[in-house]
Amino acid sequence: MHHPNPEMAEKLAHLLADVVNAKFILHGYHWNVVGPDFGEMHHFFAELYSDVDGSVDGLAENILKVGYPAPYLLSDFCDLSCIHEERLDGTSTQFMLQSSLRVVETLYDCHMGAFKVAEQCDLQGLMDFLAARIDMYAKWKWQIKAYLGVR
Amino acid sequence: MHHPNPEMAEKLAHLLADVVNAKFILHGYHWNVVGPDFGEMHHFFAELYSDVDGSVDGLAENILKVGYPAPYLLSDFCDLSCIHEERLDGTSTQFMLQSSLRVVETLYDCHMGAFKVAEQCDLQGLMDFLAARIDMYAKWKWQIKAYLGVR
Amino acid sequence: MHHPNPEMAEKLAHLLADVVNAKFILHGYHWNVVGPDFGEMHHFFAELYSDVDGSVDGLAENILKVGYPAPYLLSDFCDLSCIHEERLDGTSTQFMLQSSLRVVETLYDCHMGAFKVAEQCDLQGLMDFLAARIDMYAKWKWQIKAYLGVR
Amino acid sequence: MHHPNPEMAEKLAHLLADVVNAKFILHGYHWNVVGPDFGEMHHFFAELYSDVDGSVDGLAENILKVGYPAPYLLSDFCDLSCIHEERLDGTSTQFMLQSSLRVVETLYDCHMGAFKVAEQCDLQGLMDFLAARIDMYAKWKWQIKAYLGVR
Repeated sequence: MHHPNPEMAEKLAHLLADVVNAKFILHGYHWNVVGPDFGEMHHFFAELYSDVDGSVDGLAENILKVGYPAPYLLSDFCDLSCIHEERLDGTSTQFMLQSSLRVVETLYDCHMGAFKVAEQCDLQGLMDFLAARIDMYAKWKWQIKAYLGVR
Repeated sequence: MHHPNPEMAEKLAHLLADVVNAKFILHGYHWNVVGPDFGEMHHFFAELYSDVDGSVDGLAENILKVGYPAPYLLSDFCDLSCIHEERLDGTSTQFMLQSSLRVVETLYDCHMGAFKVAEQCDLQGLMDFLAARIDMYAKWKWQIKAYLGVR
Repeated sequence: MHHPNPEMAEKLAHLLADVVNAKFILHGYHWNVVGPDFGEMHHFFAELYSDVDGSVDGLAENILKVGYPAPYLLSDFCDLSCIHEERLDGTSTQFMLQSSLRVVETLYDCHMGAFKVAEQCDLQGLMDFLAARIDMYAKWKWQIKAYLGVR
Repeated sequence: MHHPNPEMAEKLAHLLADVVNAKFILHGYHWNVVGPDFGEMHHFFAELYSDVDGSVDGLAENILKVGYPAPYLLSDFCDLSCIHEERLDGTSTQFMLQSSLRVVETLYDCHMGAFKVAEQCDLQGLMDFLAARIDMYAKWKWQIKAYLGVR
């Protein structure tokens, strides 16, 4: 693949916007969580948002690698992202965990969608990158569900 | 100051939005720069965005410290930020540097504005935090101007 | 796969020769680059050749893993490699970058070819190794193109 | 010596080719050794090839320092090198050690030859570099002979 790939670039641009959007929602829960489990949840959301944040640069690089510039304006990220969480209804940890689960499940699905396109385009390196992220989101789904006490 | 400070919180919420907005503009230049100075500029924008990014968490914590939740939705950041950069006109390093200078000068001014409010409220710890950031933005203004060859 | 795999071994022997050949071409540009961008290019070619060099030992080990000795004589590498760059036409950085792009694109293609054989042979560990290398060559393509100012 | 030194540059170009050639022969023995002493020999050849490899960049820099570009094409290294080892007759550790001794003795002699030229040209820095390498090859000669049980 030695020429620009517009379909893959567009899929990754949406994914980058989702990841940036999700990172700040999770970072916001890290900041705003209150209650008897404050320390525990403050720490858990820190691990979670840091992991998501750590994938931002690599994702953007993959857009460059398929031959297109990466989006970077907040207003573009707002338009491109399919994640639309509500403002916090006060300070409920339960709400934050349920919202985090929705966010992480959406990230999982969107990475799977990008993986399928990468597979069709035979982009083995990108598939490798996305597979590692999918693995992490499966882990976060388990851990958030464990906090919520659901399967 | 032992009660919530709405004026300070609002000032810091705007500042947080400006910093997040600026961070992604600078990160975008890191990704999208091209030309014979690619390596140099790619590295310079990395240093710049990393420094700005490193202040996000501390800024948000200061909103919590004055008694309010920190904003975290991208759409809120868009509404709250006074920085509105245009999309890139192609691939000009000159444009990226001039835009970065505008961004950094705005951050400098907004931090100064927040510092004045913190001073009126006698928030010495916050003044210290903001002063350190003001110092960094003064440094980045110098370095971007040095690249542009202007005083 | 518990017996020697001659097809895979031969594919990897050619790939090892290509990688060794490419490493020295890029190392040579690191040494011989001149001009106003000397420091920048000297550093960039160092990053590039070091990354390529870092895969030599792992590649050879994979030949052993599929049951064959690894080639190691320079004359064998010359015969096995499909990369044949010309001697430098003086000292043009532009030539070195264009040549590096050809070399890196060839490495990308040859790794893809080896990946296909590994996939047919169900060699999951080797596929993982090759996918990571393919990803790096996609990155180097982007960065060299960024220097050349092309997409 | 403030002008290009063609005699020294040519001597060093041959030496660089010998060192690159030798490095891969030793690296090949590291890969392909088998038998009851596998772990020991695999490790010994790793130390040996790594030491030789570590001198490649410095050697090439010395060619630049005397005013000439360094060779870097494998086919040029083949032509320039005086080391011509045979392919392995199977998997004999004894053969690999005897071959390594021939290779290291040749490197010792070629470095001595280059040292004489450097001395005539009063290149004190280069003499220092070559003397350190001569010292290492004297050490490797001892260690290989110790394995072979000869003086």
